[in-house]
Amino acid sequence: MSPIDPLQNAIDALACLPGVGPKSASRMVYHLLLQDRPSALKIAATLQAAVQEVGHCKKCHTLTHLDLCEICADSTRDESRLCIIETPADQAALEKTGVYKGYYFVLMGKLSPHEGIGPHDIGMANLLNLFQPIESGQNSIKEVIIATNFTAEGEVTAHVIAQALKARGVAVTRLARGIPAGSELEYVDLSTIAHAIVDRK
Amino acid sequence: MSPIDPLQNAIDALACLPGVGPKSASRMVYHLLLQDRPSALKIAATLQAAVQEVGHCKKCHTLTHLDLCEICADSTRDESRLCIIETPADQAALEKTGVYKGYYFVLMGKLSPHEGIGPHDIGMANLLNLFQPIESGQNSIKEVIIATNFTAEGEVTAHVIAQALKARGVAVTRLARGIPAGSELEYVDLSTIAHAIVDRK
Repeated sequence: MSPIDPLQNAIDALACLPGVGPKSASRMVYHLLLQDRPSALKIAATLQAAVQEVGHCKKCHTLTHLDLCEICADSTRDESRLCIIETPADQAALEKTGVYKGYYFVLMGKLSPHEGIGPHDIGMANLLNLFQPIESGQNSIKEVIIATNFTAEGEVTAHVIAQALKARGVAVTRLARGIPAGSELEYVDLSTIAHAIVDRK
Repeated sequence: MSPIDPLQNAIDALACLPGVGPKSASRMVYHLLLQDRPSALKIAATLQAAVQEVGHCKKCHTLTHLDLCEICADSTRDESRLCIIETPADQAALEKTGVYKGYYFVLMGKLSPHEGIGPHDIGMANLLNLFQPIESGQNSIKEVIIATNFTAEGEVTAHVIAQALKARGVAVTRLARGIPAGSELEYVDLSTIAHAIVDRK
């Protein structure tokens, strides 16, 4: 195919998406062109609009087209708690539980030195800025709950953030580790059982 | 999220892609907006260009931005053979073998009554048009090889096309069914072995 082939260009562009290889990219482009050209135009228009309009929430760093995202703008939430998560998807999962009523800080990623993702990329400065007034005794955040994922990179991220916050005199907690609801011990991995024994209460 | 949220709009649009649900659509949009905004704009631009410029090849019905696709425009190929396949991906697989040197007709789908895909959608009229001159003895196609997939729908499609072509006096063959290269009988499914016994030579 020639480099100016618009079909191949579209396939190459879609193949940049995470989890999409050249084969699924072709399937997507053929599907759009054969059966759903309006959707192709809709994808194009909405992506352009999103690139143009979506930025970071001033306070919690999540992606939003507003100055303050809907949760940060909601003054009825509990301002004494801040929960730190990796992604908006993690935030959505926590919101669905209905148990947590505080605010969030969304890292939009995790520390990953070998991918070149450092403290700057996860908005560390913005996070620490939220705690500037604590030295003057005016900060309303009494507890920071670190809810990064329990993966190697999530744990490192949690550790780095916890160190930085503790140095500022902030109370830091971490989500409990243990046996998932509804599971049978026989089928739970050993590391999880070990954590559940150590953290028993 | 409000209906005018550009982030959610982009996620909804990408979730129309085959094989992409709301979760992977969010992952894609977050990835693009956080780490690769140029790719988001590239996807938008190439999809718009493809919708505008890509149509069907006049002769073989495949998707192309040209009047005649590259294979149909290649006059060095064997004009006595026509191979009918479902998709450009199938065509690419056949081309890679290097065994077939004739032309193709790409159905861009298969008959599927319950999805409402009838003869019109697979370009049946265009296909039969290629055989108009046969009645006047001028047609150069001596053999039609039907290479639709060996699925229920592919078989039905093959049957319908074969009937229509045989009624026009065209010689029709089908790809051989049998044991795949490199496989051990023990692990081959019974239907394939049965076909291989019946079609032994």
